[in-house]
Amino acid sequence: DNRVYFDGGIFFDGWDKDDVVGVDENTTFNPIGNGATIRRARIAMKVVMHKNWYGEIDFDFSGSATEIKDAYIKYTNDARDFNVKAGHFREGFSMETTTTSRYVTFIERSLISKFAPSRHLGLQVNYMKDKYLLVGGVHFNEQGGFEEVEFSQDANKDNGTDEGYSFTGRAVFRPIIDNEKVIHIGAAASYRTPKTHLEVPNSYRFSTRSISNVNRKKYLDTDDISNVDNNTLWNVELAGAYKNMMFQSEYINNDIKRLDDLSDVNLNGFYAQVGYLLGDGKYNYNKNEGEFTQVSRGSEKGELEVAFRFDYIDLNDEKAGVYGGSANGYTLGFNYHINSNIKLVLDYSYLDHDRYANGKGKLYVGHDVNGDLTKDPREVVEAKGKAGDDYGQLQMRIEIDF
Amino acid sequence: DNRVYFDGGIFFDGWDKDDVVGVDENTTFNPIGNGATIRRARIAMKVVMHKNWYGEIDFDFSGSATEIKDAYIKYTNDARDFNVKAGHFREGFSMETTTTSRYVTFIERSLISKFAPSRHLGLQVNYMKDKYLLVGGVHFNEQGGFEEVEFSQDANKDNGTDEGYSFTGRAVFRPIIDNEKVIHIGAAASYRTPKTHLEVPNSYRFSTRSISNVNRKKYLDTDDISNVDNNTLWNVELAGAYKNMMFQSEYINNDIKRLDDLSDVNLNGFYAQVGYLLGDGKYNYNKNEGEFTQVSRGSEKGELEVAFRFDYIDLNDEKAGVYGGSANGYTLGFNYHINSNIKLVLDYSYLDHDRYANGKGKLYVGHDVNGDLTKDPREVVEAKGKAGDDYGQLQMRIEIDF
Amino acid sequence: DNRVYFDGGIFFDGWDKDDVVGVDENTTFNPIGNGATIRRARIAMKVVMHKNWYGEIDFDFSGSATEIKDAYIKYTNDARDFNVKAGHFREGFSMETTTTSRYVTFIERSLISKFAPSRHLGLQVNYMKDKYLLVGGVHFNEQGGFEEVEFSQDANKDNGTDEGYSFTGRAVFRPIIDNEKVIHIGAAASYRTPKTHLEVPNSYRFSTRSISNVNRKKYLDTDDISNVDNNTLWNVELAGAYKNMMFQSEYINNDIKRLDDLSDVNLNGFYAQVGYLLGDGKYNYNKNEGEFTQVSRGSEKGELEVAFRFDYIDLNDEKAGVYGGSANGYTLGFNYHINSNIKLVLDYSYLDHDRYANGKGKLYVGHDVNGDLTKDPREVVEAKGKAGDDYGQLQMRIEIDF
Repeated sequence: DNRVYFDGGIFFDGWDKDDVVGVDENTTFNPIGNGATIRRARIAMKVVMHKNWYGEIDFDFSGSATEIKDAYIKYTNDARDFNVKAGHFREGFSMETTTTSRYVTFIERSLISKFAPSRHLGLQVNYMKDKYLLVGGVHFNEQGGFEEVEFSQDANKDNGTDEGYSFTGRAVFRPIIDNEKVIHIGAAASYRTPKTHLEVPNSYRFSTRSISNVNRKKYLDTDDISNVDNNTLWNVELAGAYKNMMFQSEYINNDIKRLDDLSDVNLNGFYAQVGYLLGDGKYNYNKNEGEFTQVSRGSEKGELEVAFRFDYIDLNDEKAGVYGGSANGYTLGFNYHINSNIKLVLDYSYLDHDRYANGKGKLYVGHDVNGDLTKDPREVVEAKGKAGDDYGQLQMRIEIDF
Repeated sequence: DNRVYFDGGIFFDGWDKDDVVGVDENTTFNPIGNGATIRRARIAMKVVMHKNWYGEIDFDFSGSATEIKDAYIKYTNDARDFNVKAGHFREGFSMETTTTSRYVTFIERSLISKFAPSRHLGLQVNYMKDKYLLVGGVHFNEQGGFEEVEFSQDANKDNGTDEGYSFTGRAVFRPIIDNEKVIHIGAAASYRTPKTHLEVPNSYRFSTRSISNVNRKKYLDTDDISNVDNNTLWNVELAGAYKNMMFQSEYINNDIKRLDDLSDVNLNGFYAQVGYLLGDGKYNYNKNEGEFTQVSRGSEKGELEVAFRFDYIDLNDEKAGVYGGSANGYTLGFNYHINSNIKLVLDYSYLDHDRYANGKGKLYVGHDVNGDLTKDPREVVEAKGKAGDDYGQLQMRIEIDF
Repeated sequence: DNRVYFDGGIFFDGWDKDDVVGVDENTTFNPIGNGATIRRARIAMKVVMHKNWYGEIDFDFSGSATEIKDAYIKYTNDARDFNVKAGHFREGFSMETTTTSRYVTFIERSLISKFAPSRHLGLQVNYMKDKYLLVGGVHFNEQGGFEEVEFSQDANKDNGTDEGYSFTGRAVFRPIIDNEKVIHIGAAASYRTPKTHLEVPNSYRFSTRSISNVNRKKYLDTDDISNVDNNTLWNVELAGAYKNMMFQSEYINNDIKRLDDLSDVNLNGFYAQVGYLLGDGKYNYNKNEGEFTQVSRGSEKGELEVAFRFDYIDLNDEKAGVYGGSANGYTLGFNYHINSNIKLVLDYSYLDHDRYANGKGKLYVGHDVNGDLTKDPREVVEAKGKAGDDYGQLQMRIEIDF
């Protein structure tokens, strides 16, 4: 399961390199750079051992850096309805996040995917029947980045701090499921203490690039939320498919409890998407994982898919004094599934950020009373909806999986 | 030979996160953090070329960093009793260090393994017969870490310094050897000049974590021993096995000669271990490498092994004014060899550090006359045996090799 | 196509570690360090998908760092005379640079290879017939180093800078070509804007080690050439082979246009080489790539090759005030092609640097009027030909490709 994704992005920021003097009506407050990148460059080694055992190690080298992705061992019973996994892998939370990037519908996952825990060291049990799926796990640190590993090791060396832990569970119910159709109703929860892989001990920070890895600006950023005691995540998932049509939606809620009488912080968001295959193909659903998998192509020439997603995230909590910004995203996507190894993707997105989406004070979000650009949301004179950067972006991907 | 090891460690340091005010009798002087980690995540490419030639490259990506491990070419004659290796591989010194981590008995090698040279660029000849084995090599720099490579390149660029070299030889005699039993008597020596991959030019530093990679504290640390002209290592090995029983022991001596009339430094230590297979399995010995290899499992359900090791290292040399600390270690281990690819390991160790094992002045090693914690061994009022941190630790490993 | 190359180098700098007081006649102005290194340690994954599609990812981990090398997808038509590549791969410029290091004649490519663009993200079309080859591409950033990727991402994040682009084309004509002989006439051109992966925005810097990766000194270095608007590269290639004889030569010209009325800068150089197989082997030419490929060995014992190259590079442009140095290089090489996987290489080179080759002010290039060593070319009293470091070097390589 080696893979490489090449991405390019063009941003309709209205800026002209050769004429940056004035900023007119159709221009973003901050210029955005067009570019191309290797989004993923992954090598995987997999092996089935002695029937019941499966092992995998999976590394990403995009950006000419090293990241450990999946690295685990799985024991599956003979009836194939129960397995235990140990190692570094995705926690059982959010059907979009647990879906491999290979089969995700759009170039980037939704804005709220930043809440979902993704890969951590831990132990997980899975029990799956046709109609339902149960997942439970205990998890520890991340090992997916050089810096995270270093922060953990320093916390251990210098302060002898215990690593922290998480308990995460997920349940999926499928009232209707056969080869042609599925209804998926899911919910998950996770109780989490701060881990030692955090850059600032006991501080959480939620930030995200806005549905693009080419545009490196993180408009949405809560900055450090300090003195965290623990947080609780929960979500609900509703999805379904009928032949060549699908929909998928999730809501995630994130409650952060703090020490020393500091206010709790609540962040949340959701997404909803629909997809349609234009040929004779059909959507497929993976019962064991509770998520969609590769589509069946309708002809030898491949299959064309059109899809739309609405995104909403809210990183503001007025009561707690956290203003990370909020945003709406609208994405129209076209996927050309050439064969089982190659996919071409074209996504147009429109982003609408609010006045608090100022990249923790680094980005302009409107004009002040003097008509000058300002990074301070309190000084912005623009009406609601006009403040904060809003723009369109066109992104392409060539995806190879082999 | 891809592999991934997941380790977890619990340390009986007597510290309670919620009550750190007082330090009572059953508490270590310094808190120790529990944790989990990916100890190894390795990808290897191997190939036999044209009968006599064998090539291998082997990388470790644990910690989301890159390390070159084995990378060499080997020519073996038709009689299979002679080979030449060129590249980056372990020098022929210490049967425990040359044994791959895959087949080492405990989660971590002995304390004295830090004296053994491990992998360096070089050229080695091996001559092996049933009754004996002879190994000789000339070696240069390490390439196994990004920093080491950078230090070497900077020394070359800025000062035009030659790289340094080592001559290393090992001889093994096996008076008794057949399919059921073996007696192994070995000795090795190595003459070494300082290499340019050292962080501080011409300075040696010997330090080690105490039989754990989860606890990052390096209690034992000589700090920089400067103005080194050369050092000479020698060891003796005594080992043997009879059916389901084995023992293995080594003594290593490390003599460091310094320039400018500075005192020579002598460091040394040893370990001795016994192992016992509880089922019908048996121990196997690799004649070509002069070390133990994978055990034969007695049944389809696997094989359970129990083992014990005593460890001693002395990094103090009073005459030379070097006080790196000394320690005793006692390790009781259980290995469950599930199949040829999977091993579960559980090790309980008790560590007993002396008052000089203060992590070069960073760790508390006792109380002073006022009853306050102190990092200065000269101020410690505790009696011998009571000074320095002593504690138990429980470590687990899931090991996959495929 | 995994590969590992081990290199060692000895430099005849006349310096004696134990006697560095005086600098005599036969001594270089700057000491040079002997050493050994892993020059390449590469893992590649390749796959032919569905007949017309080919994918590849290729990483280098030498120096215990990660570098993305080739990573692309290629579509080839059924007639096999046309293909399109997308991803990260070598631009179509310079037959020496596009030749894989596996089949390059000497341990290091020529001095002028630093002008050639090598690997960038982009899209390329190739059209090839027996008598000619046409290549055209549009290219963007490099992704081949962690720092380059970081510079690009920072430029995007902080300034919203567009990435930059290049248009590169190459044409090759082969008036004579059959299984025994070939005449190759080639030319290429590339128009390039500054990319965001540059350390100093809009600044070009051309520097090279002198035909060695062991000697880390960069005698030849233009330092930053600032305020670049664009540059244009062009080259001509003349090469040929008849049975066991070959020759190959290239001239490259590099024109850098600058903003703000700053002088344009012109840099250039060339190399010419001949090769001869001593056994019954023959040289082979790759029509699709327009370059030489692996030689055919004349016997089961392998094939011995002797080759000579003359190198010239000029990084001085008096008019523009750029003094990066110039150099002549003379290399005599012996290649023992043991089998298709293993090659032993021995290269003797003599380097002759001019007085401006002072590593941007870091290296001595002669004596001043007081007889003291000086790094300032204007103070050097040595006659032309005597100033600047001149020395011989002997390099060895063990090369494994599998």
